[in-house]
Amino acid sequence: MNAPETLRRLAEERPLVHHLTNYVTVNLVANVTLCTGALPVMAHAVEEVEEMAAVASALVINMGTLDPEWIEAMIRAGKEANRRNIPVIFDPVGAGATNFRTTMPEKLLSEIDFAAIVGNAGEIATLAGMQAEVRGVESIGGDAKAAAVKAARSLGATVAATGPTDYVSDGDKLLAIENGHPLMGRIVGSGCASTAAIGCFAAVGGANVETVAGALAYFGRAGEIAAEKSDGPGTFEPRFLDALAALAAEPDPLEGKLKIREEEVG
Amino acid sequence: MNAPETLRRLAEERPLVHHLTNYVTVNLVANVTLCTGALPVMAHAVEEVEEMAAVASALVINMGTLDPEWIEAMIRAGKEANRRNIPVIFDPVGAGATNFRTTMPEKLLSEIDFAAIVGNAGEIATLAGMQAEVRGVESIGGDAKAAAVKAARSLGATVAATGPTDYVSDGDKLLAIENGHPLMGRIVGSGCASTAAIGCFAAVGGANVETVAGALAYFGRAGEIAAEKSDGPGTFEPRFLDALAALAAEPDPLEGKLKIREEEVG
Amino acid sequence: MNAPETLRRLAEERPLVHHLTNYVTVNLVANVTLCTGALPVMAHAVEEVEEMAAVASALVINMGTLDPEWIEAMIRAGKEANRRNIPVIFDPVGAGATNFRTTMPEKLLSEIDFAAIVGNAGEIATLAGMQAEVRGVESIGGDAKAAAVKAARSLGATVAATGPTDYVSDGDKLLAIENGHPLMGRIVGSGCASTAAIGCFAAVGGANVETVAGALAYFGRAGEIAAEKSDGPGTFEPRFLDALAALAAEPDPLEGKLKIREEEVG
Repeated sequence: MNAPETLRRLAEERPLVHHLTNYVTVNLVANVTLCTGALPVMAHAVEEVEEMAAVASALVINMGTLDPEWIEAMIRAGKEANRRNIPVIFDPVGAGATNFRTTMPEKLLSEIDFAAIVGNAGEIATLAGMQAEVRGVESIGGDAKAAAVKAARSLGATVAATGPTDYVSDGDKLLAIENGHPLMGRIVGSGCASTAAIGCFAAVGGANVETVAGALAYFGRAGEIAAEKSDGPGTFEPRFLDALAALAAEPDPLEGKLKIREEEVG
Repeated sequence: MNAPETLRRLAEERPLVHHLTNYVTVNLVANVTLCTGALPVMAHAVEEVEEMAAVASALVINMGTLDPEWIEAMIRAGKEANRRNIPVIFDPVGAGATNFRTTMPEKLLSEIDFAAIVGNAGEIATLAGMQAEVRGVESIGGDAKAAAVKAARSLGATVAATGPTDYVSDGDKLLAIENGHPLMGRIVGSGCASTAAIGCFAAVGGANVETVAGALAYFGRAGEIAAEKSDGPGTFEPRFLDALAALAAEPDPLEGKLKIREEEVG
Repeated sequence: MNAPETLRRLAEERPLVHHLTNYVTVNLVANVTLCTGALPVMAHAVEEVEEMAAVASALVINMGTLDPEWIEAMIRAGKEANRRNIPVIFDPVGAGATNFRTTMPEKLLSEIDFAAIVGNAGEIATLAGMQAEVRGVESIGGDAKAAAVKAARSLGATVAATGPTDYVSDGDKLLAIENGHPLMGRIVGSGCASTAAIGCFAAVGGANVETVAGALAYFGRAGEIAAEKSDGPGTFEPRFLDALAALAAEPDPLEGKLKIREEEVG
């Protein structure tokens, strides 16, 4: 589904998007979810994650500030979503940075069937078993395009490797998205927020390559609009939320502004 | 106590308001508390909650991202506040959304004597044993007025059911507050933040119907002022904090702008 | 190292700064870290704290919302950083407010060798064994200058006691910093954020008196710039991040604006 159509569906349906995410960027993630038209909920207690996941239209699992107690909640929620064919989106924040952040994604990938996996080039390369340098939760270099295709094939999911150019692939098809602005990399949580936007799009449109690319193009376009009115990363963040909300309320201006092109999978 | 008078007391006394709240909106809750003139503190360890509650002037319990470890901290802090006649305010975020979020408020209500209970129509209806639809943490429809009165009577507390019109009742009296702006519902945490404002007002004025209604009218008036200077939900949030702080520092402009009316309890 | 020189080093090296911090102000702390040029990471699981600390260039331990599980993570990370001569910075948020917040800093101080300790006058006085009044996490009065010198001598670290005037001492030398603006005290987390800035400076310049004072002067100067463009605490926060980022990208305008003076240690 293309981005304007997905946003119209979000406005009509107001689907619930359940996030199991980190405490660093959770507020931004929740606000981005609300700006797209979806309703965010952040329940994590093992006593309720399955019940909450069961009534959601998408589940987003983000391992930014992972600890062992959360793993169980993530697996329970993920399995329940799988049982009900609710799309589960995974953001392997910092994969490769420590041994814990390398083995935990493997565990989650073995237990949960993810519809889409979203990370920076280093994180996606780590998941694909490629060489990568991850400093903390930042990717230092890395071939996003090759990583997206390889990870999609080995993991059997739609994979988005984000960066100056975002790449989305399901292993057979590859889309490159050029929307965005450097200020997006200057605020904490833009990666988590882009995964949240993909979760919202998946809630009404599923997690195929086109819908995921549409989410990233919409997200990047909002960044372009916000950057024009910003004096730095601090004023960028509120302007970015304004732009996400404005485009969601009135998606027509997106037409002709989305820079998505197909590339050879190689 | 009316809102301008309460704000003057807050500026003079700078009471400590202790929050046991969720990690999604905690920063907004703390900033709103500071903007009103009170001092926020967020200690949650069972090792210190009673000691911190004992030196606070109000305790706010918000179950937005509840888990079992926090229940114990909430009960300990609540009981200590009760022993010292410190008003305890409860925000049953998402009550009714899952079985856990239905039984946990019952447990808290059985252990702690709340001075005021604040939620959206669906949450308050759930507590009152009425039919309600709660999607995640959002109320979908519901009769806020009837819920406020019924919950106040059955729970023996001042109850505020927030929405486009806020209703506050102690079972005998019913106040309706029309201040506010639709942008308030477009940011994550405006509900939690309104409960925080009520906690601050209660710290100096107690939790009777008038003081609680005054807090919501002040909160809504700040939203009206902020909306005039905002381009969307992102720029609204900082403008809203500015307006809360400006009205707290100089409450005179509130006079004549507070839309509080008494209604029949029915 | 002076502030402009430190900021140039930060831009070149982009060091990783590992934070074990509270969930109230964590987003601000992360964004401030990124604005200075450093890369923030917030890993706290005991399974990975040592490995993450080992690859960081500084470790910042902030006890704002401490609980016992975090103590173990803090000690493990701190000891690992000590083994590798990575500077460890400590912010004893709320020290003195409860018994737990008095004994826990003692425990951390006995286990970890801190390069710098940063707090408000009341917190630093508490650590120095002086009389202090702490209301929640706010200092009420107190002699910041005497507390900084006494704590530096008794704890064997560079100590910063922040307030309208910040004081930094290693016991032999004492610097007073006059940069800053009252709006900084009107947002939640400005203390945590100043400690984060010191952590970033220490990542490239170590934690001697000059470098710590330079961090506070840079931080305060950004506050002065932001205040000119703000209408209250809400609009101040994004403007403050803009100013921190702008000064980090182009430190020349800092020259001549840093108000650091040496005082007698007495």
